[in-house]
Amino acid sequence: MRYNLPKILLFSGAVFCALNPAFSQSILGFDAAGAQKEVALEKRFDQQLKAENLRAHMKRMSAHPHHVGSPFDRENAEYARDLLKSYGFEARIDTSYVLFPTPKTRVVELVEPTKFKASLSEPILKEDATSGQTKEQLPTYHAFSADGDVTAELVFVNYGIPEDYEALKKMGIDVKGKIVLAKYGNSWRGIKPKVASENGAIGCIIYSDPKEDGFFQGDVYPKGAFKSDAGAQRGSVLDMPMYPGDPLTPGYGATKNAKRLARTEAPTIMKIPVLPISYGDALPLLKALGGQVAPAAWRGALPLTYHVGPGPAKVHLKLEFNWDVQPAYNVIATIKGSEYPDEWVIRGNHHDGWVYGANDPLSGAVAVLEEARALGELMKTGWKPKRTIVYALWDAEEPGLLGSTEWVEERQQELKDKAVVYFNSDSNARGFLYAGGSHTLEKFLNQVARDVTDPQRNVSVADRLRAKVLVDGSPKAKQEARSRSDLRIGALGSGSDYTPFIQHLGIASMNIGFGGEDDGGEYHSIYDSYDHYTRFKDTDFSYGVALAETMGRCVLRMADAQILPFEFQNFANTVQQYAAEVKQNVESMRTQSEDHNRLLRDNQYQLAADPKEPFTQPEPMDEVPFLNFAPLDNALASLDKSATEYSQALQKSGQLPVGNVEKLNEVLYKSERYLTHPEGLPRRSWFQHQIYAPGFYTGYGVKTLPMIREAIEQKNWTEAQQGIERVSEALTQFAAQVDKATLLMK
Amino acid sequence: MRYNLPKILLFSGAVFCALNPAFSQSILGFDAAGAQKEVALEKRFDQQLKAENLRAHMKRMSAHPHHVGSPFDRENAEYARDLLKSYGFEARIDTSYVLFPTPKTRVVELVEPTKFKASLSEPILKEDATSGQTKEQLPTYHAFSADGDVTAELVFVNYGIPEDYEALKKMGIDVKGKIVLAKYGNSWRGIKPKVASENGAIGCIIYSDPKEDGFFQGDVYPKGAFKSDAGAQRGSVLDMPMYPGDPLTPGYGATKNAKRLARTEAPTIMKIPVLPISYGDALPLLKALGGQVAPAAWRGALPLTYHVGPGPAKVHLKLEFNWDVQPAYNVIATIKGSEYPDEWVIRGNHHDGWVYGANDPLSGAVAVLEEARALGELMKTGWKPKRTIVYALWDAEEPGLLGSTEWVEERQQELKDKAVVYFNSDSNARGFLYAGGSHTLEKFLNQVARDVTDPQRNVSVADRLRAKVLVDGSPKAKQEARSRSDLRIGALGSGSDYTPFIQHLGIASMNIGFGGEDDGGEYHSIYDSYDHYTRFKDTDFSYGVALAETMGRCVLRMADAQILPFEFQNFANTVQQYAAEVKQNVESMRTQSEDHNRLLRDNQYQLAADPKEPFTQPEPMDEVPFLNFAPLDNALASLDKSATEYSQALQKSGQLPVGNVEKLNEVLYKSERYLTHPEGLPRRSWFQHQIYAPGFYTGYGVKTLPMIREAIEQKNWTEAQQGIERVSEALTQFAAQVDKATLLMK
Repeated sequence: MRYNLPKILLFSGAVFCALNPAFSQSILGFDAAGAQKEVALEKRFDQQLKAENLRAHMKRMSAHPHHVGSPFDRENAEYARDLLKSYGFEARIDTSYVLFPTPKTRVVELVEPTKFKASLSEPILKEDATSGQTKEQLPTYHAFSADGDVTAELVFVNYGIPEDYEALKKMGIDVKGKIVLAKYGNSWRGIKPKVASENGAIGCIIYSDPKEDGFFQGDVYPKGAFKSDAGAQRGSVLDMPMYPGDPLTPGYGATKNAKRLARTEAPTIMKIPVLPISYGDALPLLKALGGQVAPAAWRGALPLTYHVGPGPAKVHLKLEFNWDVQPAYNVIATIKGSEYPDEWVIRGNHHDGWVYGANDPLSGAVAVLEEARALGELMKTGWKPKRTIVYALWDAEEPGLLGSTEWVEERQQELKDKAVVYFNSDSNARGFLYAGGSHTLEKFLNQVARDVTDPQRNVSVADRLRAKVLVDGSPKAKQEARSRSDLRIGALGSGSDYTPFIQHLGIASMNIGFGGEDDGGEYHSIYDSYDHYTRFKDTDFSYGVALAETMGRCVLRMADAQILPFEFQNFANTVQQYAAEVKQNVESMRTQSEDHNRLLRDNQYQLAADPKEPFTQPEPMDEVPFLNFAPLDNALASLDKSATEYSQALQKSGQLPVGNVEKLNEVLYKSERYLTHPEGLPRRSWFQHQIYAPGFYTGYGVKTLPMIREAIEQKNWTEAQQGIERVSEALTQFAAQVDKATLLMK
Repeated sequence: MRYNLPKILLFSGAVFCALNPAFSQSILGFDAAGAQKEVALEKRFDQQLKAENLRAHMKRMSAHPHHVGSPFDRENAEYARDLLKSYGFEARIDTSYVLFPTPKTRVVELVEPTKFKASLSEPILKEDATSGQTKEQLPTYHAFSADGDVTAELVFVNYGIPEDYEALKKMGIDVKGKIVLAKYGNSWRGIKPKVASENGAIGCIIYSDPKEDGFFQGDVYPKGAFKSDAGAQRGSVLDMPMYPGDPLTPGYGATKNAKRLARTEAPTIMKIPVLPISYGDALPLLKALGGQVAPAAWRGALPLTYHVGPGPAKVHLKLEFNWDVQPAYNVIATIKGSEYPDEWVIRGNHHDGWVYGANDPLSGAVAVLEEARALGELMKTGWKPKRTIVYALWDAEEPGLLGSTEWVEERQQELKDKAVVYFNSDSNARGFLYAGGSHTLEKFLNQVARDVTDPQRNVSVADRLRAKVLVDGSPKAKQEARSRSDLRIGALGSGSDYTPFIQHLGIASMNIGFGGEDDGGEYHSIYDSYDHYTRFKDTDFSYGVALAETMGRCVLRMADAQILPFEFQNFANTVQQYAAEVKQNVESMRTQSEDHNRLLRDNQYQLAADPKEPFTQPEPMDEVPFLNFAPLDNALASLDKSATEYSQALQKSGQLPVGNVEKLNEVLYKSERYLTHPEGLPRRSWFQHQIYAPGFYTGYGVKTLPMIREAIEQKNWTEAQQGIERVSEALTQFAAQVDKATLLMK
């Protein structure tokens, strides 16, 4: 998988005191002397990093397809393990056994009004050296699609998200018993067949429209980086917003002999057949559609008038899969902590790819390897981390975070006790730093970004990002970039291996990478190759090195800090913003409902409608009640007070507590656990974090204060009120932990 | 030409007391008894109108091409004159002699890197009966292009408006010595070659991108209404924002023996060759362009990656024209006023078309004829208008408002003395009322719209429009639609024959039509035919009848009013809005300039830029001074007071003044003259109105308070301050006229 698209506009404020060298040496978690030593250590770390190593690893690891269950997947795992061992880590492979479907039969054909059979293939290109290894490549498909053989009229459903079905309803169109054709974009792909199925569709085809992913964006491969008319996007459609990981072992490790659900009982496997196709294959289907012209916002860049259907296009979709259990090889390497061996700083990236995976995931994985080598070099000079460092290269991320999730589930109690933090990366490219994660780490990350130099512009990566926000940000982001001392980081939804750590266990996490100046349409295709990466992405691996410098600092500071560098004022400020948003949502919905019902009562919709177009009188909207936000406001006020007191106590102490440091640090890193609830979110108990979750109807996209926000969106007012109370309790408990830490500082 | 696109979102508020029949009979300008009589008269008027007559006239008048100088143009003029005579009007043809270039040679060809010759032709379609009259049709061209024979590299310039050249500058691209390729849209077409020429281009090609005008919008002709890949848009590129009308006789009538400028001296003739082409012809040109990928907002719907160039595409453009003087036949028909023969109520629409002109202009022209017939029927029953009614069908509108402008210029003093008002229509179709004009007529027009029934929904056309705004308007428009008693009308820029009346002479004017529910890509092509119109526009001519009902009421009320129905509070309120906008513009520019200069000083632009893309450090912006808006605020305050006092006096009088009615009415209708200034606008003295003008760089698009607004946009602060003073004087003089009217009421 990959990171969500660059989060630069979330990361939106910074006034660094770059001109004050004294301040620039201040590091959260270290006293003055400790910080000086740390700066010197980090300098030595940086000196070890070599771009050519990243290049060599990528070339080696992308030489053959390395999806789950392939021989080269295992070879890569062993290669990484052996490298890590050679760097001085204790390294091993932890194996899980996960369901991983691969296709046996794939047919998409237009059967009426004309005949056309989709090619479903990606051509060999002389400019792309590995593209010809057709026998080793997994074909284009959606992992965890249902088996199926269906023939039905086609309906074009835009992105296939819930609001598109609302629009279809207004147009008088029902997809029941139909096959839907959806565009990639605007949601994680797995949402599209899920919503299609909820609406009664019997099959789903997803294509990449050249508007979002093809010639509209730029010249196509191999002339340029973008998707050609034969490119199709593989990917998982496992219902990860319910729970990620092996669908047969929900909530526990997929060990060899674990008790497994029957496949038919597994709720996260898609209920209908679904397949990705290229825009070349989509064109004849779209051309064959009749019915109403699609709304303007639905139309893509293909040279035709987009119609919605249903029919006269009729499509036959036939899919059969091998439903095999395959080994997932997680490479785990550790350096034991010298003072606190039972405090773990974990850093990971997956290693499996859909095909060659040069960008996704190797661009991040090779940074992991080079960081590890640099740590090894530091160890040779006598340095030892205070805390245990765990480096992980996950397998089976692509089909649904299977490797990391099963590994986490298998050892959840140990992780709850010992994991201080989890740092994740995935794909990495040229451009701007993006970072998302626990806001208790926002200040920490800002200091790291202050101390890493951008390879192209020779200012800190923080300053370069701030420049981008000041020049291209929204008015609000620009304003904040001038007035707020820290850049904002995004919140985490899902889409990479941080999910089991933060969402399931409440381990503070951070996802980091660079991007925004790379081009591409190679995502999850055979063209995500070494050739493509070295032409269009981080061509000289300088941002791979920048990622290693960034992550290296994260790991080193967290492993050696005197007081763990969690900070709570930014967190409190962020949650206040989320609370303001959900309140605003309720108010907007109330106004919208009142306006709508008034227009309906006065028959204005009908008067305004074109009598020559189909018209359906809309339904009246329910009145929006007033919710009691007082518990949340009280919890936020108390959190704010606690956060301020902790900062003051920390400042007073000069970052050296007089009390029990070990106890203090434990309180600090376990504080995030108090933001979880054992019952999790409604109807998806695996997701226990009460502040961040992937949206049930957005997929990767985060919903903050998810229980409150999604209940409001779904107009479930009772649940929204319960959510307010649950979140308020969590925040109150969390604030109590912050108070505990403050007391321990004194 | 045609109306600007439907102004429905300008027309944005209404709470009519439709449930109060007493109020619904109240008519501005009539006392209670007069209003009752007027309602009965209008009912009789409506009863005369027959859709079948409109259809028959359109079929007859669109049977052959009828551009200026064609035999059928003259036949149509004589047909209309004879009809108007038969209805009881005194009717004549007033002839002007105007320059009207037609093409001799048209060549567009790609000469490098491959060869392609543009077809420049519109195919014959069996579904379109008149499309085969190829010998009579004017080919696709731009009237008042320069002759020229140029070969140069091509540059794609988006819409070719000033901000596009700013963007090109940032990309490091200069069009000097190049041929530019611009898309239709976002400005009047004549702006594109003008701005290209100002930037040093030596030729200009304008194509219709299917995004705005083609398959992206809907199925193409003849399957649907939209433009096919062979459709190209004819039109004038005369520099009308400088002055419209015959370019050789600026400011005076183009009589047979008038003194004429040499063609080379005429400032409104384009300086470079320019030609319209279809998207079929544009495709090979765009495909042959290299260089940078065009910014996302520039890309259209053709199946390619839009590049900007320059080159490697090199284009040969060769154009030669016949520069003939042709007769323009304005049909003028009058009914002499029984009480005030020297007060003229003028109603017009042009009759010339680019080819068949079924929609543009015949859909409006046939309503004019039917209105006239209905007035004739009323005369047969003994009715006579108090004031003189003048019905006009203008010729030579398409090449640049030549017919109406020369007619007005020839008799400007008489019109200044006698013209009470000018009512214009042009194309007309199915949908919603749109109206633009002098805001002293806003309340009057609202009452008319209250009393005309929408043919599809059986509510008033005002109520239907209000519903549209309430359902689809902007938040601000919706808000106003709930709270303001009158719907807002738009302001007039240019694009049809009202221009000489309002802009040059200060005669209160109104432009009215229906639209928004019709489809089409036929504009200024051979497919603007009877066949196209009756399939896709106002298929049953019911909105043609609605236009006649609307315009008939306008004419009847204005001709028979006891006190002329001008009203000043809505005008004052509107000008206050304009003043707030220009002030806001200055403030935004100040903030923008400060922000920009700070970013520049801190080198943020460079830091944010992609080092692999060309980068040009932007220029610093001038500081924005504080302007003295006090004169304008004072003038507006005084206007507001005067307007309120007049309304109070009118209400007290029960619409029957005790003083000199004739004098009062003269003050009322001449008040608009005080909004003009004899020196006109800077560098375009022909445009004398100080409140409304077409934008110098938008063409049709209006600029309100033009001297102030355009000086601000062009950062000419001295001229902006002079503009504030000039507008303030005009408003003060205008307010004095309103005071005079109030005194005469007493």
